[in-house]
Amino acid sequence: MLIGNQFIEKLFQNDRRSVARLISIVESDGVQATDLLKNIYCRVGNAYRIGITGPPGAGKSTITNQLAKLLRSKNKTVGIIAVDPSSPFTGGALLGDRVRMNEIGQDAGIFIRSMATRGSLGGLSRKANDAADILDVAGYDYIIFETVGVGQSELDIAQAADTTIVVLVPESGDSVQAMKAGLMEIADFFVLNKSDRPGSEQAVTALKTILMMKEHDQKSWLNSIVKTTATENKGIAEVEQEILKHKTYLENTGKFRTKREERTKVRVKEIVEEQIRKKLWDDEGEKSLASSLEKIVLGNSSPYHIAEEIIENFKKQL
Amino acid sequence: MLIGNQFIEKLFQNDRRSVARLISIVESDGVQATDLLKNIYCRVGNAYRIGITGPPGAGKSTITNQLAKLLRSKNKTVGIIAVDPSSPFTGGALLGDRVRMNEIGQDAGIFIRSMATRGSLGGLSRKANDAADILDVAGYDYIIFETVGVGQSELDIAQAADTTIVVLVPESGDSVQAMKAGLMEIADFFVLNKSDRPGSEQAVTALKTILMMKEHDQKSWLNSIVKTTATENKGIAEVEQEILKHKTYLENTGKFRTKREERTKVRVKEIVEEQIRKKLWDDEGEKSLASSLEKIVLGNSSPYHIAEEIIENFKKQL
Repeated sequence: MLIGNQFIEKLFQNDRRSVARLISIVESDGVQATDLLKNIYCRVGNAYRIGITGPPGAGKSTITNQLAKLLRSKNKTVGIIAVDPSSPFTGGALLGDRVRMNEIGQDAGIFIRSMATRGSLGGLSRKANDAADILDVAGYDYIIFETVGVGQSELDIAQAADTTIVVLVPESGDSVQAMKAGLMEIADFFVLNKSDRPGSEQAVTALKTILMMKEHDQKSWLNSIVKTTATENKGIAEVEQEILKHKTYLENTGKFRTKREERTKVRVKEIVEEQIRKKLWDDEGEKSLASSLEKIVLGNSSPYHIAEEIIENFKKQL
Repeated sequence: MLIGNQFIEKLFQNDRRSVARLISIVESDGVQATDLLKNIYCRVGNAYRIGITGPPGAGKSTITNQLAKLLRSKNKTVGIIAVDPSSPFTGGALLGDRVRMNEIGQDAGIFIRSMATRGSLGGLSRKANDAADILDVAGYDYIIFETVGVGQSELDIAQAADTTIVVLVPESGDSVQAMKAGLMEIADFFVLNKSDRPGSEQAVTALKTILMMKEHDQKSWLNSIVKTTATENKGIAEVEQEILKHKTYLENTGKFRTKREERTKVRVKEIVEEQIRKKLWDDEGEKSLASSLEKIVLGNSSPYHIAEEIIENFKKQL
């Protein structure tokens, strides 16, 4: 069943229930979702996309909420996509959501959606991008992606966002951890949250030192460090200022366009690979894999032999 | 060029330089590597594989080193594969390696190899598995994979290992972070390192509470918590005991075999997907992708349209 045009019209008018339902369609995947996304893509591109990442407990949700409130006070609308790569076992996403809903969930100018992996990492970043497209088309001025910085997820967010913010806290070693986790490369600027805690000045110094190690050819944009105490709403205006400054920088240098083109390229690759994976490991594919594996047990094959066989079969099938 | 049989013979005799060179061949990829791995696979399977993961700074390297020393004292040989998913910018892997080399690198019964992503996550887990196969065939009794627990890498290690150990420290919130990062599901047991620090008892209690939340159908194996102070070599014998206990458990329940079969299946899938990706995005593929993307800029296409085109073209090519 195709999605009716009147439904898409409602999306263009930012009808809340239609937005929610269309995101659910995207989450559940399938032909319908692809059709929908094809139909609306020509209207994608007006929303400014912000990524917020960092270690667990750094205060990403609080900053996101405060930033959303500030943007609302300037009459901007905000879509929030909280991407949770953690396991269904933990239930972390749900808890954070409840707090958030109480704070800002009643505002008609804010749309919040959280997406969790529920056991499989596959397609999460594509789905988050698709959901952002829907919010974009619905007319939200800003889209904030929020994710915990563990491995792949923050790389995906940097890819999906126009401006990426890495949130750290003054606790010793945190900046080194950020370095290790590769957060340095993706940050357009840093937020040092909980900066009323002891060690905040040292943390800023440490961060600055690390930033100086970065190549000098990136000097056209200097990664700054904004200090916040999000629970007291301190420093949030400065965060917004820095976002706007980075936006202007991207636009003036032509990097805004190249960044978005690069993002589209990555998305196309993701979609292609996901669809091929689906075809490879459909019921029949899994069955023939299982029977091939028995050969290994018998000792006269190897994973590389079997992989070759599967690729040969796949060619014939296509 | 094929790898000569005399070279593989040297591998079977655990000739150190041959091992090192063959791992390099696997790391650099290519046809040679595939041929090699096909030829040696029939002899893979004797080494017991241990995964050690956890947050940065938990002391994984120290535990790995101490455990290797203990196993050596029992006349067992040990191969160590340190998988570093962090960025080349940080240089973290190299630093840790130098310390390690001074400590245990001179022992002929220990082989150490570190593998970093160098910018691309692709294929790292496959390469680590391939390197382990080489060490396995060379006759090492134990293979230890060590990786920082950030996102995907610790899932890969759990897949690659027979026994997976998650290392934590008593600092408050650490167990909650572990939960969030999904480390709970992959641990066969926990090591609470730096357990001489304050808060160690509370951390054990917190961990136990979390473990009790786990489903009861897993009760046949109880995840225990081993306290260590690795820098003083305390608790390492208990870690080894727990590994052996888990090994016995796997063998007695038939899970050893199913676990390894599952691993082989995942590896086959990885190899297939990697090879298809390579074909998809070869020079020609990238070129046609770039020209397709221009259509999006003109406003009459979408990532989903382009993905369809690419898959159609790919079918014709195969």
